[in-house]
Amino acid sequence: MNSPNRTTHIRLTSHPEPNAATVRRPIKWGVSDPKERGPVIGSITNPSDRNVIGAHGGSYSLYRALAISARALNPMARPDLHNTHPTAEIGPHPQWFEPGRIVSLDPWGHMVGQIYRDDIASDVDIRPTIAITKARLNMPEILSAMGAKRLKADGGVLRASGDISVTKVAVDPVWYLPGIAERFGCAEGELRRTLFEQTGGMFPELVTRPDMSVFLPPIGNITVYVIGEVAKLSHPKTRIACRVHDECNGSDVFGSDICTCRPYLVHGIEECVREAQSGGVGIIAYNRKEGRALGEVTKFLVYNARKRQEGGDKASTYFERTECVAGVQDARFQQLMPDVLNWLGIRRIDRLMSMSNMKYDAITASGIEVVERVPIPAELVPPDAQVELEAKKAAGYYTPEGAPDASDLEKIKGRDLERF
Amino acid sequence: MNSPNRTTHIRLTSHPEPNAATVRRPIKWGVSDPKERGPVIGSITNPSDRNVIGAHGGSYSLYRALAISARALNPMARPDLHNTHPTAEIGPHPQWFEPGRIVSLDPWGHMVGQIYRDDIASDVDIRPTIAITKARLNMPEILSAMGAKRLKADGGVLRASGDISVTKVAVDPVWYLPGIAERFGCAEGELRRTLFEQTGGMFPELVTRPDMSVFLPPIGNITVYVIGEVAKLSHPKTRIACRVHDECNGSDVFGSDICTCRPYLVHGIEECVREAQSGGVGIIAYNRKEGRALGEVTKFLVYNARKRQEGGDKASTYFERTECVAGVQDARFQQLMPDVLNWLGIRRIDRLMSMSNMKYDAITASGIEVVERVPIPAELVPPDAQVELEAKKAAGYYTPEGAPDASDLEKIKGRDLERF
Repeated sequence: MNSPNRTTHIRLTSHPEPNAATVRRPIKWGVSDPKERGPVIGSITNPSDRNVIGAHGGSYSLYRALAISARALNPMARPDLHNTHPTAEIGPHPQWFEPGRIVSLDPWGHMVGQIYRDDIASDVDIRPTIAITKARLNMPEILSAMGAKRLKADGGVLRASGDISVTKVAVDPVWYLPGIAERFGCAEGELRRTLFEQTGGMFPELVTRPDMSVFLPPIGNITVYVIGEVAKLSHPKTRIACRVHDECNGSDVFGSDICTCRPYLVHGIEECVREAQSGGVGIIAYNRKEGRALGEVTKFLVYNARKRQEGGDKASTYFERTECVAGVQDARFQQLMPDVLNWLGIRRIDRLMSMSNMKYDAITASGIEVVERVPIPAELVPPDAQVELEAKKAAGYYTPEGAPDASDLEKIKGRDLERF
Repeated sequence: MNSPNRTTHIRLTSHPEPNAATVRRPIKWGVSDPKERGPVIGSITNPSDRNVIGAHGGSYSLYRALAISARALNPMARPDLHNTHPTAEIGPHPQWFEPGRIVSLDPWGHMVGQIYRDDIASDVDIRPTIAITKARLNMPEILSAMGAKRLKADGGVLRASGDISVTKVAVDPVWYLPGIAERFGCAEGELRRTLFEQTGGMFPELVTRPDMSVFLPPIGNITVYVIGEVAKLSHPKTRIACRVHDECNGSDVFGSDICTCRPYLVHGIEECVREAQSGGVGIIAYNRKEGRALGEVTKFLVYNARKRQEGGDKASTYFERTECVAGVQDARFQQLMPDVLNWLGIRRIDRLMSMSNMKYDAITASGIEVVERVPIPAELVPPDAQVELEAKKAAGYYTPEGAPDASDLEKIKGRDLERF
């Protein structure tokens, strides 16, 4: 089996050259003609064509390397994109070309097979960074909602079996570094250096290739579930319900009772179904930011520190424990999150199923109006999750009945480790 | 706020030096005395102490960089590990020192706060790569199993509320590169070069630092849920039920009906509860390998190619479609998966809730006996998931009633895109 560079020296890092791909095939971020904008080329099958830092597939590029090491994958293999095109059209929308509106994904990422057909035919390895398909979801909580008459089958959006028909979209991150730096309020050079240093020296091109402005970071993707008609998303009259959710494997999959993640997500899906049934559209945006983007090891260390502290697990010391262990209360930084909503072409969210002030502030700052915020219904909050929820309310979470004060927080306690 | 290297030149890559940390603080992988083995030091707060390639937290090191760029995190912050120690003891077990038995995680990763206490006190930045805590899980399917009298509350493992008491463990990957190469049947140098090239040049140290044998790859962690008494895990008489699960967000969280992932996972949990109630222990090992470790964008592209192919979505062409798009049928490579089971100290699995021949082969090859394989009950297979399940049976999946033949496979069809 062949390997692309095996006969040459290893190039530890690249530097700008007169004939670099960034000169031959520049990416003009934000330009409205996609051919002029130019394709994102992150493939490693022809290194001289690369005009971005990083590789396709995020973290999964490491598994590709293992597949090649095991002789199961030809390193020169290129995807056959036949029949893979989107099941629904999304865009182009005006937001795609508004300066600074979208900086963390490639708005043309799902359409590369059509737009750059000729380039691909002439051997340029251009790959989709977005994929759009259909699915049917079946969740026990939705069946319960039907049993309790909160939801009713309609044969289209929701079937008698409990199946929900959705369009789902996987979006890999594509970072336009000057735009990312602007969102975080720092200089581009500082952002590049910090990314390089904090990852233990990942991608020297971050500092050696100022001509490469686009980065494919090895982090997880976003998944968007659209309930209702995708084509209606950008119509100003369409009512839109939306839950923006950050991954929490322990609750989302396993139903851990220390937080409200799955209950709020399921409530969001229920609201989305209802909105779609009355002619609107529902959106769930699922972001891979486990444990406030600190990862699960840190999350579990914080759980122990919370449960063991003097006085027990109290709402009044909730944020403090995370900061002691992680150095920061939260690393999710919602600044990039609204990009996917702008990519969908929406200008208004009628019902936002989130109490997070960080999410609300980020969405409204990105030019999307939020009409109503929908808190999690009290009966859905699991027993041990009051500590987190009340601490967040006191710190600025949206709550119609008013935030708890310091003495309230002192009284709200979680389960001891001995009582699990 | 200070930054570690700001006043110095940027070092694009490092090279072995006489006074390198690998000389001062070598990692002697597999040695039984943990002090002699030496700590894994991946911190970036003191670069000269680093004896591994990469950074802690896997992919989440990028979010740490964003937190610093946003001035929310002091780059010199170190974790306060007070009260974070494990809620249950695991090891040391003989498997930790058997040559080649564990190569993809640090067996001492949860105990660094105790073992290297003096080093940490004298300013060496050593961080846990494993965290162990407790949780209570509540899942609607378990409540249904109780309603159907398949499960009964016992007040300990399973409560009348449906709560399951578990110990849960988050394990970050720590790769010992010579051992990884051996598992994949290639030379270490070839593995290092392939990892470097296929990721688009991530971590030049993979090729410049042969003295650094340990790598913290930016991929997801493993989560282990233990139901029953952790201390019993390594006793030869303890009956053990086990599900080894690879992440599938679409099914695990959202209940997509194109595969059997969540139903099989929930069945695994039910079997684990039953085993624990009769004095055994149940283990769920959850691996972040979305879409066969090809990622969700590739997965959705494959769904479209399957559904649109001539003749429809057939079991007979199931694997072919993945290979056309991804170049490989599956990139999960179960070679590393048994490490976490060996870390737990188990020598025998009495009931393995998996039909995968790859998983079975990897587990038994790693020295763990498998007594019985438990297929997914037929009534749990969702309508559109027959295509995948039958294709897998024909390709070698365990099935007591015999595998389908070519003409059977030709007849098994999935839903068309028009019927979603």
